[in-house]
Amino acid sequence: MLIVQKFGGTSVGDLERIQNVANRVSKTVKKGNSVVVVVSAMSGETNKLVGYAEHFSKNPSRAEMDMLLSSGERVTASLLSIALQEMGHSAVAMTGRKAGILTDKHHTKARIEDINPDHMNSALADGKIVVVAGFQGVNEQGDVTTLGRGGSDLSAVAIAGALKADLCEIYTDVSGIFTTDPRIEPKARKLDRISYDEMLELASLGAKVLQNRSVEMAKKLNVNLVTRTSFSDEEGTLITKEENIMEKPLVSGIALDRNQARISLMGVKDRPGIASDIFNALARAEVNVDMIIQNKAHDETTNIDFTVTVGDLNDAKRVVDSFASSGEIKADSYNEDICKVSVVGVGMKSHAGVAAKAFLTMANENININMIATSEIKISMVIDEKYAELAVKSLHNAYELDK
Amino acid sequence: MLIVQKFGGTSVGDLERIQNVANRVSKTVKKGNSVVVVVSAMSGETNKLVGYAEHFSKNPSRAEMDMLLSSGERVTASLLSIALQEMGHSAVAMTGRKAGILTDKHHTKARIEDINPDHMNSALADGKIVVVAGFQGVNEQGDVTTLGRGGSDLSAVAIAGALKADLCEIYTDVSGIFTTDPRIEPKARKLDRISYDEMLELASLGAKVLQNRSVEMAKKLNVNLVTRTSFSDEEGTLITKEENIMEKPLVSGIALDRNQARISLMGVKDRPGIASDIFNALARAEVNVDMIIQNKAHDETTNIDFTVTVGDLNDAKRVVDSFASSGEIKADSYNEDICKVSVVGVGMKSHAGVAAKAFLTMANENININMIATSEIKISMVIDEKYAELAVKSLHNAYELDK
Repeated sequence: MLIVQKFGGTSVGDLERIQNVANRVSKTVKKGNSVVVVVSAMSGETNKLVGYAEHFSKNPSRAEMDMLLSSGERVTASLLSIALQEMGHSAVAMTGRKAGILTDKHHTKARIEDINPDHMNSALADGKIVVVAGFQGVNEQGDVTTLGRGGSDLSAVAIAGALKADLCEIYTDVSGIFTTDPRIEPKARKLDRISYDEMLELASLGAKVLQNRSVEMAKKLNVNLVTRTSFSDEEGTLITKEENIMEKPLVSGIALDRNQARISLMGVKDRPGIASDIFNALARAEVNVDMIIQNKAHDETTNIDFTVTVGDLNDAKRVVDSFASSGEIKADSYNEDICKVSVVGVGMKSHAGVAAKAFLTMANENININMIATSEIKISMVIDEKYAELAVKSLHNAYELDK
Repeated sequence: MLIVQKFGGTSVGDLERIQNVANRVSKTVKKGNSVVVVVSAMSGETNKLVGYAEHFSKNPSRAEMDMLLSSGERVTASLLSIALQEMGHSAVAMTGRKAGILTDKHHTKARIEDINPDHMNSALADGKIVVVAGFQGVNEQGDVTTLGRGGSDLSAVAIAGALKADLCEIYTDVSGIFTTDPRIEPKARKLDRISYDEMLELASLGAKVLQNRSVEMAKKLNVNLVTRTSFSDEEGTLITKEENIMEKPLVSGIALDRNQARISLMGVKDRPGIASDIFNALARAEVNVDMIIQNKAHDETTNIDFTVTVGDLNDAKRVVDSFASSGEIKADSYNEDICKVSVVGVGMKSHAGVAAKAFLTMANENININMIATSEIKISMVIDEKYAELAVKSLHNAYELDK
């Protein structure tokens, strides 16, 4: 098999851990696999460099930041290659440039546009372990770019796609994807497999293991993604296409997002296009609106409720105030003490009654549901934040996710 | 003027010093100059990375070492560029690659083969300060190479040559080239100007300020080189071609090299080619022989005396022993308690009596001269090490170098 293994900052946090990574790569190679390793900077290193830059400027040039920050991954990649060579393996360290990672021109948050895998392929054909500095590529001008948050995961997935690797393993400090946050529900169970779409829902609903960008790219490139821990031999969770999951569970997991705020607009003037005007103004202010409810009041006005992330709340307030001062909104209120609980599962596509069970569970616990949104594979409910843990535990139990 | 300014590791040793460098560059620009800055890694950084590599391997791959070590200069270059931008300057950081520094393929000790200054020239034409990561280039395969000891000086001189810069300033922690080591003779005087050839002699005789490689390249490319300190505004020493030095001093400086050992071979069989055989064998063992004296003894044998550096002494002994055991040498002896004192000056080309004064000075101090070697601009004498300071001071005084 051809396997891409990606190790994050904590997995290569010191020299001893880099040696552990080398041992793990070595073991994978000795089982007869070809391996491409993608590494992040040693944990703390990137923050140190950012701190250096901020000593000089609050708003340092992005091109310079890329030249600065890309150095951290180069260090880890060359050290890991040296460690593998010392163990008797044939290995070669490559920068993002050498690995053929071409990006657009947006410094510090570049998108991978193409991968030219020639150098990697010829090294693999020579029987070498390829060690790639993650998080970085080059733009059309040949300047170093970095890929932003979660960038090394993206490097790994894109490389796995370009090389048509059998597996892309993302090593972190957690052992996989769980049916829910084990800190809330200790009976949470690690999933063996999960579909891309479920993972996307879980990631956007607050599961911190993988960034949506990486899962989206894995889905697009059809990369079998495994997330597992580098601190033990425990098997992780395979993220793959739905067809590869034999027994589709009705529900795969319960997600909780505490980072929500609700905005209620009352007495909105009922003229055509008023909702469109409000939400366009919010979009221009770069406020991401999540759930929306609109209902006619008894008079000739409308009530509109919507949710945003807590971080966007102030920007949203400013937009709402401008409509209020023009008299098109009579009153508005804000509530940060809410959360969003979501039930995710591909099985609900083909099974009725999944949503009904969620509502019944909330009712049995006397939890009032403020807002509801559903998709093919997800039911989201906005509830008072004080019920967050209770809701998660009850739903986890109701769908028998600990079994 | 177009000025290349190079700052070594101690000059950029911490964030405050990098800010000082930015201030100095800014001052130079405000005087109306165009500036290209070449920087080393922050002092200690390269040693730290070497230590990391040696944790994994006693003999790490040279290609990996280059990828590892070249990261240090990238950090300094981007930080300095950020600092200059924050001060309101237009600046751009460039890696060795971007600056167009092309080298041969010898990782960790590559030689610069060519410089393509297009990117630097177009940035300068845009009114930008160009900040280049020193010590590094790329080979034909596009892989990063490093230039070995003194590599950032080489980068600066080569760039100054390629850009036809008016001046190449090398900033270190010493303020210039002195008539002799001020720790030995406090009356030593800093030279305003010195010719390439004199500097080459002084450097190879132990002056630590500049590596011979850099001075040789400056001579070849006709680069006006200034060595000065980054810790004050004191003027430095200009190293330039002889024609640029109006009043040629008879003698420019006195150099002392304590790192010498003398090997005496007695009763060497007087057959044709014996000296050639011995010195060829020494060359094959990579022993650098400096001075040689051969003289016929009363019997049919010859005595040969020569000097090597102390570091080469053991290798030299092994070679000599092989000739001794074959019976071609009757006896040999070794003396590490010697030193080499040299008088350097372009003026001696056209003036008689310079050597005579040196010998007379030694005689007046009752210092016995063991060996003598002369070139057009240098007289070297091997003497007992205990007389080292006395010899340097007397010669400094005899040629009135403190005036």
